[in-house]
Amino acid sequence: MTLFEKHQATLESALQALTVRTYYSPYPENPKAYDSEADGKAKNWISATMNSNYTGLDQTDATGWIGEEVSPFLQVGIGVNYPELNPETLLKHAISAQTIWAKTSVTERTGILIEALDRIKERFFDIAYATMHTTGQAYMMSFQASGPHANDRALEAVVMGYKELTSVPEKAEWVKNLGKFDLKMNKTWTPIPKGISLVIGCSTFPVWNTVPGLFAALITGNVSIVKPHPKAILAIAIVVEELQKVFAENGLPKQIVQLGVDTLNNPITKLLAEHPAVKMVDFTGGSEFGSYIESLPKTTFTEKAGVNSIILDSVKDLKSVLGNIAFSASLYSGQMCTAPQNIFVSKHGVQTDEGLVSYQDVVNGIAAAVTGLVDNPKAGPGTLGAIQAEATYKRVLDAKNLGGNLVLDTKSIVNEEFKDARIATPVVIEVDKTQGGVYNRECFGPILFVIKTDGVEDSLALTEALVKEKGALTCGAYTTNELTQSLIAHTMNNAFVPVSFNFTGAGFINSHAAFSDFHLTGGNPAGNASFANSEFVSKRFVWVGNRMM
Amino acid sequence: MTLFEKHQATLESALQALTVRTYYSPYPENPKAYDSEADGKAKNWISATMNSNYTGLDQTDATGWIGEEVSPFLQVGIGVNYPELNPETLLKHAISAQTIWAKTSVTERTGILIEALDRIKERFFDIAYATMHTTGQAYMMSFQASGPHANDRALEAVVMGYKELTSVPEKAEWVKNLGKFDLKMNKTWTPIPKGISLVIGCSTFPVWNTVPGLFAALITGNVSIVKPHPKAILAIAIVVEELQKVFAENGLPKQIVQLGVDTLNNPITKLLAEHPAVKMVDFTGGSEFGSYIESLPKTTFTEKAGVNSIILDSVKDLKSVLGNIAFSASLYSGQMCTAPQNIFVSKHGVQTDEGLVSYQDVVNGIAAAVTGLVDNPKAGPGTLGAIQAEATYKRVLDAKNLGGNLVLDTKSIVNEEFKDARIATPVVIEVDKTQGGVYNRECFGPILFVIKTDGVEDSLALTEALVKEKGALTCGAYTTNELTQSLIAHTMNNAFVPVSFNFTGAGFINSHAAFSDFHLTGGNPAGNASFANSEFVSKRFVWVGNRMM
Repeated sequence: MTLFEKHQATLESALQALTVRTYYSPYPENPKAYDSEADGKAKNWISATMNSNYTGLDQTDATGWIGEEVSPFLQVGIGVNYPELNPETLLKHAISAQTIWAKTSVTERTGILIEALDRIKERFFDIAYATMHTTGQAYMMSFQASGPHANDRALEAVVMGYKELTSVPEKAEWVKNLGKFDLKMNKTWTPIPKGISLVIGCSTFPVWNTVPGLFAALITGNVSIVKPHPKAILAIAIVVEELQKVFAENGLPKQIVQLGVDTLNNPITKLLAEHPAVKMVDFTGGSEFGSYIESLPKTTFTEKAGVNSIILDSVKDLKSVLGNIAFSASLYSGQMCTAPQNIFVSKHGVQTDEGLVSYQDVVNGIAAAVTGLVDNPKAGPGTLGAIQAEATYKRVLDAKNLGGNLVLDTKSIVNEEFKDARIATPVVIEVDKTQGGVYNRECFGPILFVIKTDGVEDSLALTEALVKEKGALTCGAYTTNELTQSLIAHTMNNAFVPVSFNFTGAGFINSHAAFSDFHLTGGNPAGNASFANSEFVSKRFVWVGNRMM
Repeated sequence: MTLFEKHQATLESALQALTVRTYYSPYPENPKAYDSEADGKAKNWISATMNSNYTGLDQTDATGWIGEEVSPFLQVGIGVNYPELNPETLLKHAISAQTIWAKTSVTERTGILIEALDRIKERFFDIAYATMHTTGQAYMMSFQASGPHANDRALEAVVMGYKELTSVPEKAEWVKNLGKFDLKMNKTWTPIPKGISLVIGCSTFPVWNTVPGLFAALITGNVSIVKPHPKAILAIAIVVEELQKVFAENGLPKQIVQLGVDTLNNPITKLLAEHPAVKMVDFTGGSEFGSYIESLPKTTFTEKAGVNSIILDSVKDLKSVLGNIAFSASLYSGQMCTAPQNIFVSKHGVQTDEGLVSYQDVVNGIAAAVTGLVDNPKAGPGTLGAIQAEATYKRVLDAKNLGGNLVLDTKSIVNEEFKDARIATPVVIEVDKTQGGVYNRECFGPILFVIKTDGVEDSLALTEALVKEKGALTCGAYTTNELTQSLIAHTMNNAFVPVSFNFTGAGFINSHAAFSDFHLTGGNPAGNASFANSEFVSKRFVWVGNRMM
């Protein structure tokens, strides 16, 4: 049985899910669905891995060992070192592997890549601890976002690639009747990979944001160099290791995917990105560097910064709404690209099933909901996780000086398991709509602005102007008025921003489900990519046809 | 019956053709398939149209009448004037029409656009004469290329658009089981058009090269401004007129598509292309301006210049091969973007079924085949047509000074119908492989270089280097050796160039059939577009999804 045959059922279920866009995931998100010993083994693994050389990766031509990751939970270096390869070596390996990988068939690639996802699944718990101790994500998010949810997105890219790569037949006999005779040609079509892919990772979601571009590049026949953020390597190193193993088992060069590790002081990203052999770049990170990537004369897929807003107009039950918003803003301390930052509220207050709640009571309610969550000793630490970067931590501490009226300052709470964790609870600042200088920019981290507007139309107009200038990954809206809902949908959608309406309970605007929700639209300033529309794969190869008479 | 229902059978046949890529065309290419009086009526139409104002187009806010087209067959101005609208007016109209067109459904747009193609079909003979007297194409090519073949490509774009626009459902109920309860969301997805399209036409194929981008923009919900070449307006004006009529009949603004006419001395192309409201640009023309278009921070689709080569290795019957090549090079006097320019021949000659033919005999045979075709009073004028531009004519007359060994100079032949036609037969120049400065660039017009190489591997290496630097739309190769064929296919395909092997008889490398052959690959320097891969439509809109709880 070939790997393609082994995974054909998964492929077909996933293809079907992409077509109907209902719920689908072959990788359970509940840790309890896995081997009960897996977590314990992973704990041992992370202990053994810290303060050692990571030897699971291909090390050919490595010049040394480097690593400078710091655990946001321990606030000490984790001491893992990775093989260092200079950019020219990485490219030499990639060029050599490209000729071989390009020759594999679409079905071979599909089988191999889904097999690799199965192997990565076996490492979900290792990946979870690696994610925790580099990003500061709490255990559950580390497990889900870097494990099953990332695998879902990787599989989505593989399946979208398979769909596009098989959308044109391999061959056809073309016959045109010209009256007295037929003109006949035998035709063939081949999807030719563009070449070497570079995937630039970010510090907060080192797996989730890397694997869509990586697997999209691989399924379309391109080899890839993964360049992780110097502070978040370990989790994606496991993914690369598992891919390399599967390539080797199938008689292919490990160097179809390579990990290009660097340090903050000696970065290699631009050297790789600007090299003419690199034909496509996937990037997640800040807007300035993202715009530089987009300006390169090559195929680029970017996820940059945006400012996500919530328009709070009218609700059934205010308490459940504010609880939902507080959770969205507190989850991983607002370090998700989909976390809300700006909450637009009318000065006239919010209509609820129990009557009008005044603007001031809404503001106080938001602060109370945040406090209730973070002060809950069971839920607080597990929701907040830790702050990934020192710079983010400082920004939160200084947030009271940003302007506006400080409603709730940040504070530290105790994480019983990690006493030294870098923790900062969300800040809530109330600003007037005229204070655009304060709220019309991304303040990465747990910082929430409540903006006092003249009404829902005003809230919408302010949000629209903001997303057109700065972009957004998501937008939340709460309204019980159908007309208002359709106005918000129309306005935001035409600014290429998706809207989540009336989310309460277990639905959070932060979450985008693979096989159903597009992550990013690609149409607003927050990025030019969309996980995973057809372009996300079709831009990575070129159809070339031959004709024979 | 809606227009969608009226044209659903055509849509489905075309969708099926795109899937299997066998022969398909709903618009017969033989003029005899149409009303026997149509040609006579069109002759009257062109007579009445010359030296008058073209009143069929929307003229709202026009500031005057302009036109400076010259018939290459008559070598006098045709005296047709078009409404002049300044760029700001065109954009104002477009912005206004955009809001309405964006609201039409995919099925409405599909029905309206296929209906418009039916109306354009009724004008095929008018379009043929309009094309003749602006481009210099002979009657048959004018009819076929601007009529049925252009309509095929337009329909292909509509159908590819329909396919992409319906690849995501309009809505879904998404249910995720969370153990004790289900998380439910209602989801919707909408393809949001990017905005205003600009389609920049060329002087030689004013309809064929314009309608793919135009119909791709329209089906995806974007309004369009067509900016024709100042010397080739009349044929595409008819297309715009018919579109405007169908829009108006369906209660839509005519200005969903506008014709933006300018003059060589007062061009408006850059003003339109650089305007922030213009979101996508389709361009056909020279490489320098094409690269400028590609550098704009918007979605671009370009067809630029390339150098098309033929690799002549071994053949069954040399005479039929040389006849085929002579026809390909002479058709419309080499003014097709797919015309061959460089013929690479080994110094050791060409193996045939009747033995080895020496290099010198092959060179002489090419010249003889060209002479035989152009001197044939029946075939010659109808194949050559006339030279569109004075600059091209001068280039051909001066070609003997380009370098190399002049094997066959250009000459004038008589076109009995148009005694004043600007005619120049193909020049054949023999060069050594070392004379890259002579042949490694596009010499637009009927100029053929025969390049003496060290053998077929050398021919291939020279062709590969050329297409990597300058790009190509097509490549012909003649070889009876399977290994050589697969080496050529592999090498050229990896440079993103399609190959046509062993074309003789009625098969010409110049012709790309809609629904089967991609025109351009988009992967080499000859252009970044491909008619019509999925990207050709998917890059023109953005998927945006909403979620409701």
